[in-house]
Amino acid sequence: MDTMKRYEKFADQIAELIRTGMLAPGEKVPSVRHASRTYGVSPSTVFQAYYLLEDRGLIQARARSGYFVRELARHSLAEPQTCQQPTQTTEVDVSELVFSVLASLKDPGTVPFGSAFPSPQLFPLARLARAMTHSLRDIPPQAVIADMTEGNPNLRRQIALRYMVSGVMLPLEELVLTSGAMEALNLCLQTVTQPGDLVAIEAPAFYATLQVLERLKLKAVEIPVNPREGIDLGVLSERLASLPIKACWFMSSLQNPLGASMSDDKKRALYELLQRHQVPLIEDDVYAELYFGSQPPKPVKSFDHAGLVMHCGSFSKCLAPGYRVGWVAGGRYAEQISRLKLMTTISPSVPAQAALAEYLQHGGYDRHLRKLRHALEAQQASMLASAARHFPACTKVTRPSGGYFLWFEFPEQIDALRLFQLALAQGISLAPGPIFSATRRFGNCARLNYGHPWDAQSEQAMAVLGRIISSF
Amino acid sequence: MDTMKRYEKFADQIAELIRTGMLAPGEKVPSVRHASRTYGVSPSTVFQAYYLLEDRGLIQARARSGYFVRELARHSLAEPQTCQQPTQTTEVDVSELVFSVLASLKDPGTVPFGSAFPSPQLFPLARLARAMTHSLRDIPPQAVIADMTEGNPNLRRQIALRYMVSGVMLPLEELVLTSGAMEALNLCLQTVTQPGDLVAIEAPAFYATLQVLERLKLKAVEIPVNPREGIDLGVLSERLASLPIKACWFMSSLQNPLGASMSDDKKRALYELLQRHQVPLIEDDVYAELYFGSQPPKPVKSFDHAGLVMHCGSFSKCLAPGYRVGWVAGGRYAEQISRLKLMTTISPSVPAQAALAEYLQHGGYDRHLRKLRHALEAQQASMLASAARHFPACTKVTRPSGGYFLWFEFPEQIDALRLFQLALAQGISLAPGPIFSATRRFGNCARLNYGHPWDAQSEQAMAVLGRIISSF
Repeated sequence: MDTMKRYEKFADQIAELIRTGMLAPGEKVPSVRHASRTYGVSPSTVFQAYYLLEDRGLIQARARSGYFVRELARHSLAEPQTCQQPTQTTEVDVSELVFSVLASLKDPGTVPFGSAFPSPQLFPLARLARAMTHSLRDIPPQAVIADMTEGNPNLRRQIALRYMVSGVMLPLEELVLTSGAMEALNLCLQTVTQPGDLVAIEAPAFYATLQVLERLKLKAVEIPVNPREGIDLGVLSERLASLPIKACWFMSSLQNPLGASMSDDKKRALYELLQRHQVPLIEDDVYAELYFGSQPPKPVKSFDHAGLVMHCGSFSKCLAPGYRVGWVAGGRYAEQISRLKLMTTISPSVPAQAALAEYLQHGGYDRHLRKLRHALEAQQASMLASAARHFPACTKVTRPSGGYFLWFEFPEQIDALRLFQLALAQGISLAPGPIFSATRRFGNCARLNYGHPWDAQSEQAMAVLGRIISSF
Repeated sequence: MDTMKRYEKFADQIAELIRTGMLAPGEKVPSVRHASRTYGVSPSTVFQAYYLLEDRGLIQARARSGYFVRELARHSLAEPQTCQQPTQTTEVDVSELVFSVLASLKDPGTVPFGSAFPSPQLFPLARLARAMTHSLRDIPPQAVIADMTEGNPNLRRQIALRYMVSGVMLPLEELVLTSGAMEALNLCLQTVTQPGDLVAIEAPAFYATLQVLERLKLKAVEIPVNPREGIDLGVLSERLASLPIKACWFMSSLQNPLGASMSDDKKRALYELLQRHQVPLIEDDVYAELYFGSQPPKPVKSFDHAGLVMHCGSFSKCLAPGYRVGWVAGGRYAEQISRLKLMTTISPSVPAQAALAEYLQHGGYDRHLRKLRHALEAQQASMLASAARHFPACTKVTRPSGGYFLWFEFPEQIDALRLFQLALAQGISLAPGPIFSATRRFGNCARLNYGHPWDAQSEQAMAVLGRIISSF
C-alpha cells in the first residue's frame, strides 16, 4: 500500500465539500491563506491541492479572484424517487432482451453509453503487462499446476490485506479466487439454492442478476431500491417474514444501476435482519473501489461474525478488465463454493493471478485508484451538466457517489426500448430500463455509462439523445 | 504449422512398428543399408532417425551388432478386458470421495502417480511467457474488453486452422472459447439437459464427469469401455432404444482412464447411431494431441454434418496448464453455449488468449508436441517395464497409444481405496478405481500417471506399491 500525499488528502477533503454541496457551484473556495490557517496545512499544500482540483475539473481559477467551484458540477435535473412496490415473486424471463441489448455494443464505432465497463484507457494496462512479464519469469513451473487448486498464494495474501485495511479481518481459507465476480456470484447462488427457490434481489437490479436467476430457475422477490439509500428494509423485512426466501443478492454500495449506497447503520440493520432469519447474503461489491468520497464504503461483510455473508469482488471494473480474476470471501460457505468451482472451471488463469499479485504488491494500485476515481468523478460532472443542457427539464437523474453509471427517469410517455432502438440507429448505445427488472418495469428509464473520457462526441451524442427524447 | 523433417517421419514409422509389436523387444532393427533400400530413404536419414529413437529410449546400440529394440519396451503384464456390464441408471454420489483423493495431491513431496496433469517440466513455459509479453505489447486497449465477448480473433482462427488440418471444416461461429475444457463440458451438458435427465457416460469414466453429473442432478447410464476399442456400441444401442437418454458424454480417443481409442469405423458407426436417435454427443477430446502413432486420431466430430456433436478441446494437457483456455466446437448448440458462458464466467482470461494465439502462430507448437509425445511414450515404456518388475504377475495393465495414464487391474482381493491410503502414507499418490465409477466399481483397479520424467524415485515408488499390493 502506498501513502497518500498530504496535498492529495487535503484535495479530497475539498472535493468532498463540493460533492456534498457544502461548497456550491460558482462559490469561491477558501483563499490559500484562509485554508492554510483553517485546516492547519502549509500554503504550498493548499496550492498543490488546488492545482490538483483544477486538473480534476472541480474548481477553476478566475483572473485575480482566486478559485471557484466549477459551474459544470451543477446539474439542474432532479433525482428520482424509490420505484413503486413490485409484485411479490416473479419467474424471470429477460435473457433474450438483455442479449439483444448487449449485441448492440459490439460495433466499436458506437458511442458506448450502454457499456458495462469504463474505458480501457483508464486502466494501467502497460504497467499490468510489465507485471505479467515479471511474474511469469519468476513463477516456478510446478506453480502453474498447483496454483489452480490453491490459487496464487501471494494474490490471496494481497486481497486479504486489502480487506484488513478496510476493517474486515478475513481468514485466508474463506477466500476463493474465481474467474471474475460473475463466476463467484453464480457459485454462491448455486451453493445456497435449489431450482424453484426464492431469491430476494433489488429493483432495479443488475441485468446479469436476472439472467443468472433465470438460468438457475430461481424466482425473484424484488425489493425496491431508493437511489440514495439503497434497498427498502421495511419491504425486505416483510418479505422475509412471509416468504421462504433462501438467499439475498444485493449490492450494498454503488448499486448497479442506481448507484445507491446504504449507510453503515443501514448495512448493520440489514445484517441483523438476515441473521435473525438465517438467510445468507450474496454481497455483490464489484464497484467498491470506485467511491468518490474520502472514505471507502464498508461492506455488510464487515458486520458479519457468523459467516452468513458471501462477499464478491473483482478487479474487472477497477484495474484489469479481461483478466477475469475475481473472488468471494465465502464465510461459512467457502468450502462448498471452492468445491463447486473445481467442478466447473477449476481455476482462474494462473498467469493472470500472478500478474495481479505482482501488480498489487509493486504496481501502485492505490495511486491508480485515486486517479481513476478522480477521472470518473469529473466525467460524471460532465455527463450531468450535459444532460441538464440537452434533456427535458422534467428528466430525473441519480447522483451516485461513485461508479460510472447514471440512471435517468424520463417522462412517462418515453418508451426506453424504443429510445434504445432510435439511439442505436444514430450510433449511440444505452441500457434501457426494462433489462433491469424481472417484471420489465422501468419502461421510461435508462442507464448511461460515463466511464469514457468526455469529449465532443459524447456531448453531441447527449444532444442527439435529447432530441430523440423530446420527439416522443 | 511447421514441417517435420524426413528423419523424424522415418523415426516415427519405426517407432510405430515397435509400438504395435511388429518389431519385438530384443529384436534387431533393420541395418542402415537395409532400411535405406527398403524404405527409399538416404542412409544419413536412417542414421539420424536411429539416433533420435535411441534418444527416445526405444532402441539401443550394441557394440558391433547394430541397433536393437530395447527390452524396456517389453511388458510381461496382460491387458485387462472390458468391465462387466454396469447397472442401468444411477444417481451419482462420488464427489466427496473424489475430493478426498484430490486433496492427497497437494503435498509437492508426494510421488504424483495420482495427478491429473503431466509434469510442468514438459511444457514450453518460458516460450509461452515470451509469447505473453509480445502479445500484451501489441494488444489494443479496446481488445481487453472486446475480446471478452468475441474471443481473441487470432486464437479463434488458429484453432479453426488446426481443425481444418485434421480434416474438420469448422465454421468460425461454431467455436466458443471457454475457461478450460472443464467449463466447455459443463456448458454443453447444461445446454442439452435438465435436472433429472439421463446421460450416457463411460464405465470407467473420468471422475470429473461424475462430479458434474452429480452437481447438475443428472442420472448416469454407464456404458462399458473396452481398453483398446472404446465403448460397447451394442450396449449403447440397446440403452438408446430403451431409455430416454438426453446426451452422451464420451472420450472417443485416448479415453481417461483406460486410454482406449475407437477406430474411425467405430466412430462413424457411433455417430450414425446417435444421429438416428437424435441424441447429441459431448465429445471430450482433451488428449487428442497426445497420440503416439504417426497419425492423429480423428474425432467423431469429423463425421458430423448435422451439428449434433459438441467437440471440446483444451490447451491444458498439451501446452499450457494453468492458462485455463479451452473451447467447444458446439455444432447446432454453439449459440446457446455461448450465451450460457456469458452468464457464468463471461470469458476466458484475455491475456491468456492472446499469449496462446501468439504461441500457436509463432511458437513452434508442432515441434513441441512431437517432443512431448516422444517423452510420454518413453515414460510409458518405463512405467510398464517397472510394473512388470515390481507388481504381481497376475496384474493387468492397459497399453494406451497416447496420453499419460495406465490403468491397472489388480487381483480381486486388492482394495484400491485401502491401497490408496497405504501408498499415501508412504508418500505416493494414485487414483483409485472407485472414483471412476458412479456405482463405485473398479474396487481392485487404479490409474497411475506416467506424465513425469522417470527417475530413481519413480522406480522406488513402484517397488513400494508392489510390496503393498503383495501384502494384501
